[in-house]
Amino acid sequence: MKPIGKRRWAIAEGYIPRDARPKTRALASHETACLLNAADEDAHVEITLYFSDREPVGPHRVTVPARRTLHLRFNDLGVPPDTDYSSLIESDLPIVVQHTRLDSRDTQLALVSTTAYSSD
Amino acid sequence: MKPIGKRRWAIAEGYIPRDARPKTRALASHETACLLNAADEDAHVEITLYFSDREPVGPHRVTVPARRTLHLRFNDLGVPPDTDYSSLIESDLPIVVQHTRLDSRDTQLALVSTTAYSSD
Amino acid sequence: MKPIGKRRWAIAEGYIPRDARPKTRALASHETACLLNAADEDAHVEITLYFSDREPVGPHRVTVPARRTLHLRFNDLGVPPDTDYSSLIESDLPIVVQHTRLDSRDTQLALVSTTAYSSD
Amino acid sequence: MKPIGKRRWAIAEGYIPRDARPKTRALASHETACLLNAADEDAHVEITLYFSDREPVGPHRVTVPARRTLHLRFNDLGVPPDTDYSSLIESDLPIVVQHTRLDSRDTQLALVSTTAYSSD
Repeated sequence: MKPIGKRRWAIAEGYIPRDARPKTRALASHETACLLNAADEDAHVEITLYFSDREPVGPHRVTVPARRTLHLRFNDLGVPPDTDYSSLIESDLPIVVQHTRLDSRDTQLALVSTTAYSSD
Repeated sequence: MKPIGKRRWAIAEGYIPRDARPKTRALASHETACLLNAADEDAHVEITLYFSDREPVGPHRVTVPARRTLHLRFNDLGVPPDTDYSSLIESDLPIVVQHTRLDSRDTQLALVSTTAYSSD
Repeated sequence: MKPIGKRRWAIAEGYIPRDARPKTRALASHETACLLNAADEDAHVEITLYFSDREPVGPHRVTVPARRTLHLRFNDLGVPPDTDYSSLIESDLPIVVQHTRLDSRDTQLALVSTTAYSSD
Repeated sequence: MKPIGKRRWAIAEGYIPRDARPKTRALASHETACLLNAADEDAHVEITLYFSDREPVGPHRVTVPARRTLHLRFNDLGVPPDTDYSSLIESDLPIVVQHTRLDSRDTQLALVSTTAYSSD
């Protein structure tokens, strides 16, 4: 059976709030691209970041090993806090991408998640 | 490679709650259409607002420059608070659209986000 | 231009929590199907509810007028609280459907929203 | 009319936080795959779990009876807490899948939900 997914994905929303207080890694405000590679070969993925007021940055390159998931934090790609951005995710194999934000500006956390936009 | 996205998008949900207390722009209740234009030409976008009890309003026109993202607040298009609405977003180039609400009626914020509905 | 949307939609998630305390209509726990009809004719919509342990209920019939949005609360269709359900939404014209829950079991509200699944 | 849905679905996000305090089943942190089978025959579904650092686990087999919804908790499939995972859901009949997390690490709950990624 052919591997599930598509090769091109986009996440139009992007915004990592700056936390007022230091937090643990699990509870610090972050955004994540969750990448599933259900195929039997490694997927080579390129991530380009788009901003409102400057040229795109990237591509950042990551490998998602065969039959693995990679939950990649945009914070770890150098995205600055309090900045509007979007991302384009291109893979040499079909993958599946879901976007998540944990927002802990307030004393309680808030969450979002959505399947990203995919294209052939 | 052809630019990612589609030319027609819709967000069926729309509701901006009225805040009980004044807030900073970042934390005031708002809804956003995040528009990614990954192409090398500017995208000209028209946004029409639909309501439950009156004729549609618009189109509002915005330009998303080449290789940029635009996070557009519906509040800035004159959408009244505490009112059900939907939006139709039409572009002359393929773009990607994601919808977000930050809801700060309560003392803690709540968030939603979803990839919008797209069509050829 | 042809109207945006599809004729068949499904929302697999459904759960309206029972509030511990009485609340205003705006802040009571509820789930909503937001229906956008961007066409120039009224859309006649049928909503069927599916449960885990009993036969489907419906269809409930609603009209979404031409060029209007209808934010329909599942609470108003008689969905009992604290019960798993799903919904199938069928229209004679293309429409766009987005699902939302406001959950106010706790003292602070929580929200979800997603574009529903669509099919020809 | 043909049953709504697809046979292959993926949820790239997966993370069940460990609760600091014991909670009721309704309010304990959990993730759910909501499965709608609107057809007139039972759907036989296989769920495979993917991780970041080990081979996939499964398939877990469940039946979604004809004209029923099943809200299946990943907690009940043995997913460990505080662990990144993804899931692949394959059915012999078309079904519709929506993903939900209730996160009650904090004193207030947070929620996400999204229509999963589907494929023929």
